[in-house]
Amino acid sequence: MKRIYLDHAATTPVDPRVVEAMTPYFSQKYGNASSLHEWGREAREAIERARKEIAKRMKVFPEEIYFTSGGTESDNAIIKGIAWANKDKGKHIITSKIEHHAVLNPCEWLEKQGFEVTYLPVDEYGVVDLDALQDAIKKDTILISVMAANNEIGTIQPLKEISEIARDKGVYFHSDAVQAYGKIPVDYTSLDAASVSSHKIYGPKGVGLMYVKQGTKIEVFMHGGGHERGRRSGTENVPGIVGLAKATELAFDHMKENAEHEEKLRKKLVEEVLGIPNSWLNGHPEKRLPGNAHFGFDFIEGESLLLLLDQKGIAASTGSACSTGDLRPSHVLLALGLPHEKCHGSLRLTIGRENTMQEIEYTAEAVREAVEKLRAISPYGK
Amino acid sequence: MKRIYLDHAATTPVDPRVVEAMTPYFSQKYGNASSLHEWGREAREAIERARKEIAKRMKVFPEEIYFTSGGTESDNAIIKGIAWANKDKGKHIITSKIEHHAVLNPCEWLEKQGFEVTYLPVDEYGVVDLDALQDAIKKDTILISVMAANNEIGTIQPLKEISEIARDKGVYFHSDAVQAYGKIPVDYTSLDAASVSSHKIYGPKGVGLMYVKQGTKIEVFMHGGGHERGRRSGTENVPGIVGLAKATELAFDHMKENAEHEEKLRKKLVEEVLGIPNSWLNGHPEKRLPGNAHFGFDFIEGESLLLLLDQKGIAASTGSACSTGDLRPSHVLLALGLPHEKCHGSLRLTIGRENTMQEIEYTAEAVREAVEKLRAISPYGK
Repeated sequence: MKRIYLDHAATTPVDPRVVEAMTPYFSQKYGNASSLHEWGREAREAIERARKEIAKRMKVFPEEIYFTSGGTESDNAIIKGIAWANKDKGKHIITSKIEHHAVLNPCEWLEKQGFEVTYLPVDEYGVVDLDALQDAIKKDTILISVMAANNEIGTIQPLKEISEIARDKGVYFHSDAVQAYGKIPVDYTSLDAASVSSHKIYGPKGVGLMYVKQGTKIEVFMHGGGHERGRRSGTENVPGIVGLAKATELAFDHMKENAEHEEKLRKKLVEEVLGIPNSWLNGHPEKRLPGNAHFGFDFIEGESLLLLLDQKGIAASTGSACSTGDLRPSHVLLALGLPHEKCHGSLRLTIGRENTMQEIEYTAEAVREAVEKLRAISPYGK
Repeated sequence: MKRIYLDHAATTPVDPRVVEAMTPYFSQKYGNASSLHEWGREAREAIERARKEIAKRMKVFPEEIYFTSGGTESDNAIIKGIAWANKDKGKHIITSKIEHHAVLNPCEWLEKQGFEVTYLPVDEYGVVDLDALQDAIKKDTILISVMAANNEIGTIQPLKEISEIARDKGVYFHSDAVQAYGKIPVDYTSLDAASVSSHKIYGPKGVGLMYVKQGTKIEVFMHGGGHERGRRSGTENVPGIVGLAKATELAFDHMKENAEHEEKLRKKLVEEVLGIPNSWLNGHPEKRLPGNAHFGFDFIEGESLLLLLDQKGIAASTGSACSTGDLRPSHVLLALGLPHEKCHGSLRLTIGRENTMQEIEYTAEAVREAVEKLRAISPYGK
């Protein structure tokens, strides 16, 4: 059976060149980067080389990059760290209704600790309402956190405009760039902080980074031996960091061609799938991640659709991979203003650089067949 | 040149069998364990298999194991999590003066948040004073955190006695088992929580686990998509978890023979090195980790000793690998009651299962030569 992986927003295969770069650091150059001997120096040099290569591509200073265990840790460390460090100035945080749970849940936790959080609305395409942002900023606002691109519907946010508003008001601006990093151009220097994950860009799981602009007041989240210049303790994951750097090189140095390839496939997929009656595209028609296609279908359940596609060897998602077992409709789709019944029949197909046009054509046909089959057995579809 | 690695308490090479177990999960079975398709199921099954294999060896329930990014995260998550969740009951925590910074620094941070922390003294061998523990427990004590074995001097703590005192008083007992896990028998069921790291037992860096006994009241440290049954969010590091499980199998299933081998080499090393005048062994003569040898030398600086050994291809440490660049004497050695000048000339050699008697003999000779050389140029040594 064909196996077609179209769930690249959930995770990606590690590129063999990334595995190759990592391999020596498992069993040969295995030192602890804090050790004062040859093994330690090898590890330290590998980390600092990785930091430099990444910084060059993000166009930030190497000293502004701190390695973490992934996007979720970076979000936690930045949001809680900025909140704690600036609570004397104010206790108000602004974020959006369609953030990843790694942003929303730290915010909700901070609310229990006495912080106040405003959740900005978005328009029908999932774009954050800039007027609402302007109105929400108060004297005691210390942080705005808006993602660069949405993990479910792929919508790209107006980071430039938000950063100008934030700068104008003297409020820190963090962006969860997990889905955007290496896939679309982002001006990281316009941000005060950003979260990045390795496994979304053909790097290994279990590693990521936080970008924190010099001068940003932030408290430590992970306390311990004082690694990463005191800002993130824990023995550095040397192979993971080396892998993240290699994945970053591959993503940034081929960003344009990868985006063009994925966009071409996505356009074909959207064209074919929207030929199915009572179907629609969620998210912004243009301002979206190149590989993201997110569909809605009347009269069916997304989960059943997934199962049928799985039987045909196709990996898809109903939205986020991070809320399995959660039968509530997606908070992202609800925020678009879709009625509950329009939120259930959703399908996310996220294209990667290794997908082919043949795979897309096969998938479009499989989706059509599966939707027809499900509608034939649905009491509503008849 | 010979290269002899004797810094296994800092980190270990990943066992080739561990790398082999991990490899398929990078580029072939690369799914996100939360995904509802074949790739996702493969990943989920690998994680649950790993959890079961580890639980079997720790003799705890699989549901009591939560994967993290390493020992430091586990320490942070447990100490802060138990403190936050039980603050209505009390705000007093007891730990020891010789804990790792991943325990001490979260405790110090909690002090700034209004918690009170008692730092227990230890005897001249580094064993926690049980009478002091009894005396320290108050009505509002919520947590005792004492490591299973010390990372610098190797001293093993009386966990059984501490757990009985804790149970008797209804206080949670956490142990940082990073150095003990897989090396000496530990009764994990006598604890309410434990921290474990993979890279200390020939597993990969960037992964670890926390054991949290069922029923323990603990708040979430890493908020997000609700992974690990809501207790630790962030996409699971599948290859890392598989590697930790394999490393656990190898360590636990050969614990006795590894310990005997390391102890034999350590005894030879101690015998040879203590032949150097004005030298002594730090830590307990018997109750210590099998591979740990920690020496003191009068009239020399540990860092110079390291450099000379490094020139001979030998990897050693002055104490912890986690406080590089920190010129203050080790908090562990100070807690033993050693005067400042006796804390500077220290050398930690930590033996691993792949070391040989020939390596130990070569190293003992190299240490003797280096100490003599340094004393010859020292104004105090003459």
